[in-house]
Amino acid sequence: MKIIKPTLIVNKDRVMKNILAMKQKVENSPGQIRFRPHFKTHQSAQIGQWFRDSGITSIAVSSVDMASYFAQNGWEDITIAVLVNPLEIEVINQLAKTFFLDLNLLVDSREIVTLLNNELKHPVKLWIKIDTGYHRTGVTWDQKDDILGIVNAIKRSPRLHFRGLLTHAGHSYKAASSKEIKGIYDDTVSKMNEVREYLEKKGFSNIEISIGDTPTCSIVNKFYGIDEVRCGNFVFYDVMQFFLGTCQEENIAAAVACPVMARYPQRNEIVIYGGAVHLSKDSITGKNNQKIFGLVTLPQNDNQEWGPIIKDTYVSRLTQEHGIIKTDSEFIKQINIGDILMILPVHSCLAANLLKIAPGGQNP
Amino acid sequence: MKIIKPTLIVNKDRVMKNILAMKQKVENSPGQIRFRPHFKTHQSAQIGQWFRDSGITSIAVSSVDMASYFAQNGWEDITIAVLVNPLEIEVINQLAKTFFLDLNLLVDSREIVTLLNNELKHPVKLWIKIDTGYHRTGVTWDQKDDILGIVNAIKRSPRLHFRGLLTHAGHSYKAASSKEIKGIYDDTVSKMNEVREYLEKKGFSNIEISIGDTPTCSIVNKFYGIDEVRCGNFVFYDVMQFFLGTCQEENIAAAVACPVMARYPQRNEIVIYGGAVHLSKDSITGKNNQKIFGLVTLPQNDNQEWGPIIKDTYVSRLTQEHGIIKTDSEFIKQINIGDILMILPVHSCLAANLLKIAPGGQNP
Repeated sequence: MKIIKPTLIVNKDRVMKNILAMKQKVENSPGQIRFRPHFKTHQSAQIGQWFRDSGITSIAVSSVDMASYFAQNGWEDITIAVLVNPLEIEVINQLAKTFFLDLNLLVDSREIVTLLNNELKHPVKLWIKIDTGYHRTGVTWDQKDDILGIVNAIKRSPRLHFRGLLTHAGHSYKAASSKEIKGIYDDTVSKMNEVREYLEKKGFSNIEISIGDTPTCSIVNKFYGIDEVRCGNFVFYDVMQFFLGTCQEENIAAAVACPVMARYPQRNEIVIYGGAVHLSKDSITGKNNQKIFGLVTLPQNDNQEWGPIIKDTYVSRLTQEHGIIKTDSEFIKQINIGDILMILPVHSCLAANLLKIAPGGQNP
Repeated sequence: MKIIKPTLIVNKDRVMKNILAMKQKVENSPGQIRFRPHFKTHQSAQIGQWFRDSGITSIAVSSVDMASYFAQNGWEDITIAVLVNPLEIEVINQLAKTFFLDLNLLVDSREIVTLLNNELKHPVKLWIKIDTGYHRTGVTWDQKDDILGIVNAIKRSPRLHFRGLLTHAGHSYKAASSKEIKGIYDDTVSKMNEVREYLEKKGFSNIEISIGDTPTCSIVNKFYGIDEVRCGNFVFYDVMQFFLGTCQEENIAAAVACPVMARYPQRNEIVIYGGAVHLSKDSITGKNNQKIFGLVTLPQNDNQEWGPIIKDTYVSRLTQEHGIIKTDSEFIKQINIGDILMILPVHSCLAANLLKIAPGGQNP
């Protein structure tokens, strides 16, 4: 496969393994749990099709535009897993009138429930976003009166159907160990169930619980105490998850193929065509406190796959179009200008958003 | 102007002032200096037209694709201001055969000069990239034998025309003061002229010197010792330049209009629709060691302009679609869900790359 500029390469075998592993864990867990993978990671109809081929029918997305795109590609059960943006109510109405579409929206205030009741022309299902510790959006889990107020407001509306409680335990990305990540799962489930029990005591029933971050979903052996799993990053994983210990190297299913533009043996650095507009500026901190913007592998199988991570070698800096790789005198000897290096991205969602997956999903 | 999702807003008056100020500084400097603005910041034919209306005829770009785009839009003197990527030689040949186009390329090794001599079918002009301290690409300025070797290789080729020495003093972005930035300018010019004098002693003449980073170009009162100015970011400037002291607040000419999705008075935080896929994850460190991903202003003139920077208020975190603004109890009182906030980006080049400027350049 000929590559001349930075290109996202997806390893379909690994993607399918990642999908099936998560799906089987959901199915092997007690109770009836729905698997609703988050499609913001790949944003691709073709990779969506691979999920469909695996038996998946429910998805989450992170924008109204993404919901429209996947609805046009035949998906019939979609959660827009960000709070309703009242400025997009017209577009949401367009989507909601699609006769086959089960549209799920998120709210965390009575104000937005009132607005939806007044402005929506078609029925939708609502989840209440709960903050269990990440502190991005959501009603704080122990503000039970506020939560009850929102449920009551939903129940009063003929067009709004209350479906349940949804949280994103994104603080799991800051955890220092697998044990801590497991602790965040337990804590999240405990808080969410406390809210559910409170609402049940107030007379409500059939309240679902939806959770979603890839770290906790990857670490737990079996899910319990929930009704829906909504993770997304697991489809590709990336260097951030690998450093967190939530995946193995062989789970990483997306890499950015980058041409070598220059090599500087005197400072053991290689410069690639592949920068902030290809990999994103997301970084992690390495053991020696160094910033890491990607790990380095060599291409295999005609640029369609890649080999093991090269030791003592990493993307140390990014400018708009360039990446600067720090390495050692051994590795730099093997590399020539015009070679391709396969960079494992720190955050695959952002790299895939920048580079886009080709329509049809084929590697180029 | 109706805005429903994150949208790049460009203030044309400020853009024109920024262009004219830099152009006049170039023209008021002694000697005949060429102004070759870098178009990677805006990547827009329409904003390019504003430069053309100001009398600019030479430009720099950061990829072969960008060169093709601007050539199609009538630009006739283009420097691809990154090292030649040998894998793109076919596309470069397509460009180089355009009869009206003056195509300038960068090299920093004899290896690539040999490749260009062997594979290029049409004449191009070459600049040698010199490293004067940034340590990204380029021959180190004091490796004069290497530089001479490259010049000799260029001179032996009938299709390659040696034009001069080019550097990017990107280390100016790390400077702690205006004085230090001015020092980097002086040091850069001194090193580049030492190389030029060396080559002149070896019998070469008409060697131009091209420099380019926005911090030094903004700080110097008059240019000296150079033949070409190649900065790009100055067209919009941004929070990074503002913190560096290389622009005033009223020079910042691009903002991202973001809907307010949620407000949390208990923690003085506002959540906007506007995240890493809109603003990029580039950040700066504030006075209290806090990470800053953008500053906050209020819209004016029907969302086409913005007011002064709100004090004690900044974008403190970004996830894929969300930004979390830290503020105080006074400001949060004024803000409602569905309002628009105008975020001044930390790095305007990356925000413009993510959000694109609408064809025609009009604000939406």
